[in-house]
Amino acid sequence: MTATIPVGVEAARDLVGPAFGAALERLSPEVRVVAAYHLGFGDADGNPAGTDGRSGAAGKALRPALALLSARAAGAAPERAVCAAAAVEFVHNFSLLHDDIMDGDVERRHRPTAWTVFGTGAAILAGDALLALAQDLLLEGPAPQNLWASRCLSAAVQRLIAGQGADLAFERRDDVSLAQCLEMAGDKTAALMACACSIGAIYVGAPPALAMGLAGFGAHVGLAFQLTDDLLGIWGAAETTGKPVRSDLRARKKSLPVVAALTSGTPEGTELGALLARAEPLDEDDLLRAADLVATAGGKSWTEAEADVQLASASKCLAETDMPDDVRAEFTGIAEFITARQW
Amino acid sequence: MTATIPVGVEAARDLVGPAFGAALERLSPEVRVVAAYHLGFGDADGNPAGTDGRSGAAGKALRPALALLSARAAGAAPERAVCAAAAVEFVHNFSLLHDDIMDGDVERRHRPTAWTVFGTGAAILAGDALLALAQDLLLEGPAPQNLWASRCLSAAVQRLIAGQGADLAFERRDDVSLAQCLEMAGDKTAALMACACSIGAIYVGAPPALAMGLAGFGAHVGLAFQLTDDLLGIWGAAETTGKPVRSDLRARKKSLPVVAALTSGTPEGTELGALLARAEPLDEDDLLRAADLVATAGGKSWTEAEADVQLASASKCLAETDMPDDVRAEFTGIAEFITARQW
Repeated sequence: MTATIPVGVEAARDLVGPAFGAALERLSPEVRVVAAYHLGFGDADGNPAGTDGRSGAAGKALRPALALLSARAAGAAPERAVCAAAAVEFVHNFSLLHDDIMDGDVERRHRPTAWTVFGTGAAILAGDALLALAQDLLLEGPAPQNLWASRCLSAAVQRLIAGQGADLAFERRDDVSLAQCLEMAGDKTAALMACACSIGAIYVGAPPALAMGLAGFGAHVGLAFQLTDDLLGIWGAAETTGKPVRSDLRARKKSLPVVAALTSGTPEGTELGALLARAEPLDEDDLLRAADLVATAGGKSWTEAEADVQLASASKCLAETDMPDDVRAEFTGIAEFITARQW
Repeated sequence: MTATIPVGVEAARDLVGPAFGAALERLSPEVRVVAAYHLGFGDADGNPAGTDGRSGAAGKALRPALALLSARAAGAAPERAVCAAAAVEFVHNFSLLHDDIMDGDVERRHRPTAWTVFGTGAAILAGDALLALAQDLLLEGPAPQNLWASRCLSAAVQRLIAGQGADLAFERRDDVSLAQCLEMAGDKTAALMACACSIGAIYVGAPPALAMGLAGFGAHVGLAFQLTDDLLGIWGAAETTGKPVRSDLRARKKSLPVVAALTSGTPEGTELGALLARAEPLDEDDLLRAADLVATAGGKSWTEAEADVQLASASKCLAETDMPDDVRAEFTGIAEFITARQW
């Protein structure tokens, strides 16, 4: 199954792109070249990546699209929420820059990760700069909504950090429950998605009921996305994920399908646990065997079913929240796109 | 020469300490243990460092003291600026956590640095959490001053990041001018000190003239501090600095005395340049020789003189800014303390 990028996402990119560029101009040259490279706006030497300042290596900018949509849900022109959309995307990329270091990931979006190109120190600093820039952008907006949006983003950042901290800690533990793993995904992924789906509305002064409905939608979509992403981390093709195939298994990540398998009480779950606990590195045959064990132990089907449950809950939130029909349809389109299973 | 901690600094610690503790409670357990260790509130296993929740390993908390003083300069009780004081200290420690990784420093405040104890990933994350926490604390305060204080802090963070980026880049360059080096120190150190000296006043709604006078004072004190700190990095005793002796020379840092010597046009400056450009590691004799060359080339005396110039400018800012005499005297006391030369 392939999925095409919803039309609203492209439009959001065109709207937010110039704001990205202008915001990056504020960074000092040494920091900017790293941030621009990571964001796909430039190459390792600081040259622009293309005539339109973007490249195929740029992220899909789904979160900015969701932020702009949320402003439209509140009846505002998407242009009014451009700063909020850029802020969410900067926070997302702050976390990617730092996570790639922590996880030792060497490839993202089909390119070497920033820390492998510029060094760990420069990549840490570029992440710091994007986090600070996100708050800068929001705080400069109209009061008092700038403050509400800032606090919304700040809360999401704290949960994102808590989730990544739990994720790192889980790698050293062999007793992680499925509930703990879901909570971690809720913090690490769903909190920022909930923020993306509501911050534009908050930024244009929407009533709390709308903001909360959108945040609920985003939280469920975020979990569905993480569940799908974990499936891709095992069964996704490298050309789809932009990362080496079976990279999550190689890193022995306690991803949701793996934990579902480990806690399944099946013989395959036990065998998987023994395989992942082995001191020696896992070769390609081991990784294929591990993927089979996750599936046979029911980890794959549980994850697919849970993603469907979360998507259904997201739809329910959307249906119960008052907004223009075309906006609701675009939200649905993006939710389906980011949870499409591509292998 | 020894310097005793000014009495106001101890009082500030007692006032801000509980706010620190309460703020850290918001972090997830995995992240909190790292942040608490770094701040000197806990050991590597998460146990409190002492009955008062502090240890000798805690920072001197000079920046919180300055922030509280700045609220008093505006005629407000220091209690009103506790959040602002904590926010500045959190940002300072965010930068220390990340800088220690980037610089490969293994010791701080007489203890192993956080990344050597908990790993690079956990230390990155703890720094991220402190940066986000700083903004959280400020944004929760009374409007609209919370917004002004947030923007003040945010601007300082961006300059701090720019300064650290330049510092890293300078290590790979052999053509750094003294002006560039001073600009880097202004960004890396003076910007946050200027923020510390004015954010309390801003947070309690002081008039712009007072905030600007205090920020000017802080910027000059910050530069004087960095100049002194760079001298300590070469000639400071390990028991004073909490770091190995001559650590800046070992790391071949382009510190201000070194760049002053390198750009002095003297034979000693040329010899120093050749020594620091050597591919092989520098042994103890090399480091002693390098320190001598910095001094003979005039790098030490230039740095001492420039620190005096900055301190005089700081005094002038203070004298020209309207505030209670006892507050002015305490500012002067802290400025003299943090620029005292201890070797």
